[in-house]
This record gives sequence, structure tokens and C-alpha cells, in this order.
Amino acid sequence: MKTPVTVLGLGAMGTALARAFLAAGHPTTVWNRTPGRSPELDSLGATRAATAGEAVAAAELVVVCLLVDDTVRTTLDGLDLTGRTIVNLTNSTPGQARATADRISAAGARYLDGGIMAVPVMIGGPAAFIFYSGAQAAFEQHTADLSVLGRPAFVGADPGLAALHDIALLSAMYGMIGGTQHALALAGSEQLPAVGFTNEFLMPWLTAMLGSLLPRMAKDLDDGPAPGAAGSNLAMQSAAYGNLIEASVAQGVDPAMLVPMGELLRKAVEAGHGDADLSAAVQLLRTAD
Amino acid sequence: MKTPVTVLGLGAMGTALARAFLAAGHPTTVWNRTPGRSPELDSLGATRAATAGEAVAAAELVVVCLLVDDTVRTTLDGLDLTGRTIVNLTNSTPGQARATADRISAAGARYLDGGIMAVPVMIGGPAAFIFYSGAQAAFEQHTADLSVLGRPAFVGADPGLAALHDIALLSAMYGMIGGTQHALALAGSEQLPAVGFTNEFLMPWLTAMLGSLLPRMAKDLDDGPAPGAAGSNLAMQSAAYGNLIEASVAQGVDPAMLVPMGELLRKAVEAGHGDADLSAAVQLLRTAD
Ligand SMILES: NC(=O)c1ccc[n+]([C@@H]2O[C@H](COP(=O)([O-])OP(=O)(O)OC[C@H]3O[C@@H](n4cnc5c(N)ncnc54)[C@H](OP(=O)(O)O)[C@@H]3O)[C@@H](O)[C@H]2O)c1
Ligand SMILES: NC(=O)c1ccc[n+]([C@@H]2O[C@H](COP(=O)([O-])OP(=O)(O)OC[C@H]3O[C@@H](n4cnc5c(N)ncnc54)[C@H](OP(=O)(O)O)[C@@H]3O)[C@@H](O)[C@H]2O)c1
Repeated sequence: MKTPVTVLGLGAMGTALARAFLAAGHPTTVWNRTPGRSPELDSLGATRAATAGEAVAAAELVVVCLLVDDTVRTTLDGLDLTGRTIVNLTNSTPGQARATADRISAAGARYLDGGIMAVPVMIGGPAAFIFYSGAQAAFEQHTADLSVLGRPAFVGADPGLAALHDIALLSAMYGMIGGTQHALALAGSEQLPAVGFTNEFLMPWLTAMLGSLLPRMAKDLDDGPAPGAAGSNLAMQSAAYGNLIEASVAQGVDPAMLVPMGELLRKAVEAGHGDADLSAAVQLLRTAD
Repeated sequence: MKTPVTVLGLGAMGTALARAFLAAGHPTTVWNRTPGRSPELDSLGATRAATAGEAVAAAELVVVCLLVDDTVRTTLDGLDLTGRTIVNLTNSTPGQARATADRISAAGARYLDGGIMAVPVMIGGPAAFIFYSGAQAAFEQHTADLSVLGRPAFVGADPGLAALHDIALLSAMYGMIGGTQHALALAGSEQLPAVGFTNEFLMPWLTAMLGSLLPRMAKDLDDGPAPGAAGSNLAMQSAAYGNLIEASVAQGVDPAMLVPMGELLRKAVEAGHGDADLSAAVQLLRTAD
């Protein structure tokens, strides 16, 4: 028999997690604050628990996917967690993850913190991966079970490390989202259809730039900048950047999304990195060293 | 014989353009403010002109790639441009492009404004493309010549349209760059090597998110949001977003790059779009309608 599992939280993501466990044949108990959410789970074979405590009692492996850290705290506080493995896939900060780990351990359970790198439709598919950190033995015992959701990546015994990885990748994603939203707002300001603009230009462009800029930037960060002139020096980039803001304003598009990068380029040039490449600006984001 | 061409400006990009013309067999005359720049062009067969005027006299097709719009103005002002086709690939705003078009036309030349969607190493390769707008007859006459640099995309007779497309794609690129720089700064705050983090996690993640989020967002913008609950609703995203900023500060990484997206999500939820998807936020970037 497959490992029984409990899923707490049946929002968009918790529902996708429960479906993946059910599809893989795991006896699955579910609980949600608002009863009756995601009724399709019943016909897929889920067992509904009336309370979170009842749900936790049903399986050693408990997957938690609630809105925010506070929700996790209020939901789990006071429950009998003895002997359980709590896998918390709710988005959290490294600090929140460490505090939750302390509370869960004090309650006699093993704690794995996780960060889901997928949207719900991707769960169980090849592109989904999930960061885990915390109780390594629990991770090793349940690697196969957790693989049902997406490729698991254990990133360390410090329970905060999964959240750190998660938040780094989410930051990159939101930068990309903000940039594309701004681009689509500009395209819309000239009544260009979004789908055509995206398929013909935006997708190929971002795909090409991702492949061209990101590996180079990472390599320069690890090894120091490659010798020779930069293909796109920061002084040139900073000089052109004002055009992005000026044109946005002229087109009736809020330039707010663009402002911090303009500041970063300006600071990089002021700090003497005008001839350098993008990696030189990363160091300026570090305030602590 | 291939069409003779003149290239004004031998920075990183102008040099790449001249190399591509030379490699394709075009008689190529070059000029740069600082003489002797990019000496490798001489052995590749370039003819150096002593002045910009001499360079313009050498060919009907004149490609301009200088630092900024001001540089173009001061370089071309007063030269005899009669009967020339001026292809200006210097980054500009739509407004600058229109003003340049007026000046160039008044000087008796045809004007094409262009936006290069490539870094210099990509010029002449399969992923490079270049937006053009302005004098359509000039574009049609020189399509084959310009294809040597990258796939040409003519986007309209209004000379400002190439710049509009260019600036929209650059905005998207800088969003992505800013996000990845922030992500690499966070990874660096835990001494994670940038190359490993990038290859193993950042690249696959952004590739997956680009393919998953961008086409959906574009479709929702054109057709209205798809019916049914959002896979990643904005209320949830806004609730989690504070973690990105809090964790960055705790890791000693400047959260500035993340701030505008947090504001946009907050505004979208306040405006009643908490159950909606990312496309709902794009409209909020439009200040003019
Ligand atoms: N969706 C994604 O794309 C995605 C991707 C990666 C990670 N995540 C993370 O996964 C978690 C869940 O996201 P989601 O998309 O499933 O969000 P969602 O669809 O908005 O669902 C939120 C869930 O939290 C529950 N909840 C909220 N407040 C609660 C409270 N005070 N007490 C008990 N339960 C409460 C809701 O229960 P009710 O039904 O009773 O309201 C619901 O089950 C979040 O931390 C999110 O950051 C989501
Ligand atoms: N590199 C890229 O990735 C890229 C991509 C797309 C578009 N672009 C655009 O292409 C243009 C050129 O970029 P680049 O990368 O070649 O920049 P670059 O390497 O910094 O070269 C700048 C060029 O402008 C010339 N210049 C600067 N000020 C001048 C002045 N007052 N009078 C005459 N010439 C002057 C420089 O001549 P000196 O040698 O005498 O200084 C040099 O030829 C920019 O508009 C840029 O936005 C670049």
C-alpha cells in the first residue's frame, strides 16, 4: 500500500497536491477550513476530516498548504502532532520556517519546510520542483511519496533554506512578470493585440535574453568578470534606460516598475562600473557586506 | 555586387553590425568619433572614412549606431544627406524617432528607425531580430541588405513604432534582469555558487514560468479572463509577497527591486481583483485611460 497522507488546506494549491496523491494511489485524508471546498476530490477517493486534528490523526505524513505562516500557526497550535512528519508547503520566510520548525519539534514531530516551484496545473508534471529543508531523515523516508508532487530538491538541514531558495526564485519570477506586464501595457497603449505581440516578439526575445544573459551573469559572479570589453556596457545601458521611462510616461504607462533598475544602473556607473557588465550591479544589491 | 553600406559608430554594437556586413560581402565604409576603434575591421576589408560626412558620401545606405539620440543629432547635423537612406539603430524613444525622421526627411533623405533586439554577439545569428518603422519603400528596397544583421520586422510607417516595440521588449528584459539579479544576490547571501544555482534552479524555473504565465496573461488581456478560479489568485500572491521583501531585508539584500510589484499587487487587490489572475494587474499600469 502507498503511504497514507493528509493534506491540510484545499485552496488552489492544496487541491492540486491532494489530486496528485490520489492519482498516485495514496490513501488521502483532506481538511479545509471552509468545508466542502473542491468537491471533485470526493469522487477521486479522498477522505474528508471534520477537523484539522482528525486529519492529522489519520496519517503520519501531513502536508500543510495554507495561505500564510500565521494560518499555519493557528491551524496547528494545540493539535497532537506526536510522531508526525509535518511537511509545510505554505510560502514562508526563512525566519518563519525556522520558528515553525522549533514549534513543531517541541510538539514531538519532525519538520520539513518546503517551497513549491510550480503553479497548481504543473503539480505532478515534469516541470514542477519543490525545495525541502529541515529533517533530513524524514525527507529520505518520504522522498518517493513527495516525488508524486514534483521533483524534490533537498537543500539543507537548516529549515530556512527551502524558503530562501523559494523566495529567490519568486523574486526572479516577479521581476519577469513585472517586466512583461509593463511591456504588455506599452503594447496596449498602441492597441497592439497582446497575443500576437507575445508570440511573435516577447516570448522569443525573453527566451533569447534568458539564455544569453543569465548564464554569463552567473559565471561572472562566480569567477569575476570575463576579460575584454563588455558587449553591453553599463554606461550605455544607463544612458538608454532613461528612454524607457520617458517613453512609458509619454504612452500613459506608469513607469514605477522600471524605476529601481534605473537607479541601480545609475549607482553602478557612479561607482565606477560603467565599462562593466550586468554582474557588477548584483553586488550593489547586497546591503549587508 | 552587394549593396555598399556605411556604418557610423563603432561601439560594441556598431562593430558587430560592420562585421556582419563585411562577412556577407558588402563593401563597408566605417566611421567612429574616436579614430582607430575596432582595428580588426581593417583586416576584414572595411574602408575607414576620416569624417562622418565622408562616410555618408560613400554609400546610399547609411546605418547609424551611436550612443544616444543627442549623439545622432550632433553627428548628422549639417551633413549632406541628399538621396541617402538613413537607418538609425541607436536606441531612442518614439518621440525622438519621429523628430529625427522629420529632420532627416527635411534634409532630403529617407528615414528608417530601428530597434535592435540582440546583444552584439547575436548579430547575424538566428535569434537576432530588428524592428523597423518609417519609410516603407526604403525598407522594401533594403530588406535583403538589412537581413544580414538579423531578422527584420517592419512594424509601421509611423517612425516611432520601432522604438515603441523596442522599449516594450527592453522593459520586459530589464524586469527579468532585475529579478535575476535580486535572486542571485539572495543566493549569494547564503554563499550559494551562482552558476550552480542558475543552472539547476533559476534557468529551469524562469523557462517554465515564462511558458506557463506569459501566454495565459496575453490571452486573458485580449479575450478577458478565462472563467473559473485563478490558479494563483492575486490575494494569495499579495499575501505572500510581503515575505519576499521581509526575507530580503533579513538577508541583507536591498528590497528596492521588489517594491513596485508589491504595490501593484496591493492596488489590484484593493481594486477588487483579489480573485483574479495576473492580467488584471496590467490594466492598473495604464495611467492614461
Ligand atoms: N497557487 C500557486 O500558484 C502557488 C504556488 C506556490 C506556492 N503557493 C503557496 O501555497 C499556499 C496556498 O496557496 P493557494 O494558491 O492554494 O491559495 P488559495 O487558493 O487562496 O487558498 C488559501 C487556503 O488557505 C486557507 N486559509 C486561509 N486563511 C485561513 C485561516 N485563517 N485558517 C485556516 N485556513 C485558512 C483557505 O481556506 P478557505 O477555503 O477556508 O478560505 C484555503 O485552503 C500559499 O502559501 C501560497 O503562497 C501557491
Ligand atoms: N550593446 C548592446 O547590447 C545593444 C543592444 C541593442 C541596442 N544597442 C544600442 O546601440 C547603440 C550603441 O550601443 P553600443 O553597445 O555600441 O555602445 P558603446 O559600445 O558604448 O559605443 C558607443 C558609441 O557611440 C559613440 N559616441 C558616444 N558619444 C558620441 C559623441 N558625442 N559623438 C559621436 N559618437 C559618440 C562612441 O564613439 P567613441 O568610440 O568615440 O566613444 C561609440 O561608437 C546604443 O544606442 C545602444 O542602446 C546596444
